Amino acid sequence: MLYFHPVTSFLMAEEKKSGVTSNLKAKIVIQQCLSATLQVKPQSDGVEAEYVEIDRGVVLYVCFLKGADEETVEKMAKFALNIRLSEALTGSKLVSILDLPGDILVVPQATLGGKAKGKMMQYHSNISKDTGRELYQKFVDLCEADIARNARTSEANCKVRGGTYGNRQVLSLQTNGPFTHTMEF
Amino acid sequence: MLYFHPVTSFLMAEEKKSGVTSNLKAKIVIQQCLSATLQVKPQSDGVEAEYVEIDRGVVLYVCFLKGADEETVEKMAKFALNIRLSEALTGSKLVSILDLPGDILVVPQATLGGKAKGKMMQYHSNISKDTGRELYQKFVDLCEADIARNARTSEANCKVRGGTYGNRQVLSLQTNGPFTHTMEF
Repeated sequence: MLYFHPVTSFLMAEEKKSGVTSNLKAKIVIQQCLSATLQVKPQSDGVEAEYVEIDRGVVLYVCFLKGADEETVEKMAKFALNIRLSEALTGSKLVSILDLPGDILVVPQATLGGKAKGKMMQYHSNISKDTGRELYQKFVDLCEADIARNARTSEANCKVRGGTYGNRQVLSLQTNGPFTHTMEF
Repeated sequence: MLYFHPVTSFLMAEEKKSGVTSNLKAKIVIQQCLSATLQVKPQSDGVEAEYVEIDRGVVLYVCFLKGADEETVEKMAKFALNIRLSEALTGSKLVSILDLPGDILVVPQATLGGKAKGKMMQYHSNISKDTGRELYQKFVDLCEADIARNARTSEANCKVRGGTYGNRQVLSLQTNGPFTHTMEF
């Protein structure tokens, strides 16, 4: 049985409300990891749950807000792949995930669009679920293309994995320092 | 041997630079977890590393910027403890971590103060390490006091655990949905 988290139900309801204008189009949270596992299909009717896995690299939690488009996705992917936040395998230099080279796990995370109102979070600025899913897939595709194009990541067989948009993100993360960064677009 | 992550070295250097004024005083990232483990003392000279652990609850990544004071810490703790982001154990209601009731892991995360400049992150707005450590401890103390005062959390023996300020945050996280939220103060 598919179960929707209350936040997901909220988001579905919020879609129907009128738009709230803002310059903010997307948010990303970046964490460094040694390994991470994410469920892409929940267990159902005796069929086991399915997971994807990455080794050393980054976990990218992404959220698209109203007004986000392909240009937003391109900017965000360019930023995430080139910003120097990963510890080089030797020495103490910070390098990009492409230069590490490392794996990438992209987690859909619509909750990042939340704004507090009293003791509740509201998600009025979130993009519609259908457009969000498209932009999310575009983001994963761009990461995959760049990982394949880059000499270091392709030689090292680095991989890009993504979650299932709209699902509960059952996640396991191991890190020797998440060095969490947030970025808005 | 103590090893400083390049970001930590950066932060140490940034402390010495002149202040950058901003209204932003603190940032927090909140993730829901089933369990989490955090290193509080790294392995050294044959002595094993030490860890703290929480069960179901929240992981709070906190960062203080220049201008943060006790009032900032109080606002942030009040927010984190009362915002309704946790799934109730029965039903589909969202409740506060106090009402869940659940555990709290506070992770010092100075990297949240980062601002991108080209391909690098800069941490000019971060508070000095000494003041940051004080405010961090104050935040943990406030969480502990509220958990002890609250009937639900104290009856359920919920716990607050914190990392070691300035250390590498070796973290392991299991979640059935991080439902990541960010908040600025």
